[in-house]
Amino acid sequence: MIDLVKNYGIHARRIKASVIRELLKLTNKPGMISFAGGLPDPKAFPVEDMKDICATVIDEFGDVALQYGPTEGLPELKKELIKLAARDGVNIKDENILVTVSSQQGLDLIGKIFIDPSDPVIVELPSYIGGLQVFHGYGASMIGIPTDDDGILLDQLEETLEKLKGTEEHYKFIYLVPDFQNPAGVTLSQERRKKIIEISRTYDILVIEDTPYRQLRFEGTSPDSLMSLDNTNNIISVYTFSKIFVPGLRLGWIIAHPSIIRKLALAKQSVDLCTPTFTQLIAYEFCRRGLLEKHIEKVKAIYHKKRDVMLKALEEYMPKVEGLRWTKPQGGLFLWLILPKHINADKLFYEAVEENVAFVIGSAFHCNGKGQNTMRLNFSYPTHEEIHEGIHRLAKAIKNKLK
Amino acid sequence: MIDLVKNYGIHARRIKASVIRELLKLTNKPGMISFAGGLPDPKAFPVEDMKDICATVIDEFGDVALQYGPTEGLPELKKELIKLAARDGVNIKDENILVTVSSQQGLDLIGKIFIDPSDPVIVELPSYIGGLQVFHGYGASMIGIPTDDDGILLDQLEETLEKLKGTEEHYKFIYLVPDFQNPAGVTLSQERRKKIIEISRTYDILVIEDTPYRQLRFEGTSPDSLMSLDNTNNIISVYTFSKIFVPGLRLGWIIAHPSIIRKLALAKQSVDLCTPTFTQLIAYEFCRRGLLEKHIEKVKAIYHKKRDVMLKALEEYMPKVEGLRWTKPQGGLFLWLILPKHINADKLFYEAVEENVAFVIGSAFHCNGKGQNTMRLNFSYPTHEEIHEGIHRLAKAIKNKLK
Repeated sequence: MIDLVKNYGIHARRIKASVIRELLKLTNKPGMISFAGGLPDPKAFPVEDMKDICATVIDEFGDVALQYGPTEGLPELKKELIKLAARDGVNIKDENILVTVSSQQGLDLIGKIFIDPSDPVIVELPSYIGGLQVFHGYGASMIGIPTDDDGILLDQLEETLEKLKGTEEHYKFIYLVPDFQNPAGVTLSQERRKKIIEISRTYDILVIEDTPYRQLRFEGTSPDSLMSLDNTNNIISVYTFSKIFVPGLRLGWIIAHPSIIRKLALAKQSVDLCTPTFTQLIAYEFCRRGLLEKHIEKVKAIYHKKRDVMLKALEEYMPKVEGLRWTKPQGGLFLWLILPKHINADKLFYEAVEENVAFVIGSAFHCNGKGQNTMRLNFSYPTHEEIHEGIHRLAKAIKNKLK
Repeated sequence: MIDLVKNYGIHARRIKASVIRELLKLTNKPGMISFAGGLPDPKAFPVEDMKDICATVIDEFGDVALQYGPTEGLPELKKELIKLAARDGVNIKDENILVTVSSQQGLDLIGKIFIDPSDPVIVELPSYIGGLQVFHGYGASMIGIPTDDDGILLDQLEETLEKLKGTEEHYKFIYLVPDFQNPAGVTLSQERRKKIIEISRTYDILVIEDTPYRQLRFEGTSPDSLMSLDNTNNIISVYTFSKIFVPGLRLGWIIAHPSIIRKLALAKQSVDLCTPTFTQLIAYEFCRRGLLEKHIEKVKAIYHKKRDVMLKALEEYMPKVEGLRWTKPQGGLFLWLILPKHINADKLFYEAVEENVAFVIGSAFHCNGKGQNTMRLNFSYPTHEEIHEGIHRLAKAIKNKLK
């Protein structure tokens, strides 16, 4: 066989089996309670509706549902997406939308058209690992900006942009997950959102708003989306049906300025020609029937309770020591646990697995390799009992470590 | 708004609106007969089966059909793909397969992991435009090797490899569409296939076998697939359900050595995490019920007749002049028309559109910009009447040009 090492390109050499994947292999044993995944609760899936929806799609659209479609997405689905955007204060047209095979594809296409090797890209500390993987794959030079409970720290963001402005480097974009962030569960405050728009104008920099969980708010009021504050001027927003409908259709979409959408569509053409027509029409029919709103309410109710169970268990079992705290997300799927500085979660992971409980190490979400005293906990997938018992076990592992 | 021209990366600057896309806009007028597309005949789609298949998938798999799945593809579908391969003399295991969102994604992932800017990649003259777009996007330096009715010319292939061997350039692969090639409709002969395997070993070069139409043979006997002759040593094969089932599910797969599959799967992880589980299970159920074989027979019968109608119309209407000829494909969706050298098909296109008939200009399939006296004609999509009348019109346009 051919010497593949010699044959692979630089992109292939950049991508490696992720630490998470390797760690998660250890969690495949009976009795394990895992807070490591990011899966929606399958009990919420509209399984019964799906049968009828598929039948309707086939009856109404016949062979159109099985034929190739336009690269940009089917007009039927785009109409529903325009309505969905309008409900969130975003006024767009058909030409502002690209339907994608998952929001991950959205991120990949954005990386593809903007990033040249060593281009600076600004991300949060911590940030969504799938985004980091994409940008790293395209060779971006990632600059991490710390966050607090209100999102990215603007002073440090501006300071960084100011420094970059004076260099040869051409920064490409700021990547944010503003709502119930994966992994930290925090939400960018209204005040900071307005300031982000100003910064994007001052420094002429695009902002990628990746917002898979925005509609899953359990309590409190939602700040404006970045898209609604700037309306496709400097904002590119990335959405998905995975958390508000089902992930198994792999459907997402991008909203952006028409000129950017055209470029992304050209890139998508050579990536997969078009998104599956059949799955697009299923999502269309789901929206058309008004089932999306009902489903979102259902999912929110389930995750709200689960978050409460997790917060309560954390209160109950976690040792009261300085430096140990966790975020209280008002929505989404995740919360973030911060350990006292001297406790290393990368090492704690193995001890937790011994106790039959798993999480994702926080360092995996840090582009600078830091965050060793942090971890991400998912509350959407495990049952109430598992959450309660799992936090009990995790607290035990942490207490052992504190001794 | 931001200066996008400054902001786009080199990849975005490489991709441009394709000539074809622009030309096809001209063909959107009433009364037009188009041989330009590459669409399967929707009348062949198993629309009625689909309803029952969807219901079964939902009943049997429930929420698994709607949840995230493994990046490599669902084991159920992979089992069916292993059986399918076995019937074509290819013995593989689960670890040899990556399920993809279309064979186009297969090509994109291959480009992503192998090609660095200016790497030589060897393609046929003419070659599949979607492949050329991908390789061009990744910055490949494409070297075209002429073909005849038996496929790629081996003398010139060897000569080229010999020359490249002595240089610093690291050639990455030979890209072939060996069966009923898109666009030319020709099939690589058995003898040349064996020689290609030898060449790949002598020169230590991978061969990409892109074979969407292999199972659509109307007559004659099939030469061995490259994969069956070399069994994942130097061959990477790319497949799709688009022509043998339906394109609207956007399902394809790659067969290759496990180490290559692992690398491709890592690349796919950051591209879309996984292929839709729901569409994979539909394809699985379609195969499991034995419907795939029946469907392939049905499609073959339809396209066989349409090809005959096109060949007959060409005999009937085309002027008998030196240098005007066409290929007689034994399967697939396309044939190739070669005009006398002095007739430029790029110009003829506009005159044909005046006559209300369209084709794809052959130069679009040539990485070297040549082939101006050639065109691709699709016979799978238009009706018998349209084929007959369309060839009549095309002949008229050609005759006018010959005057």
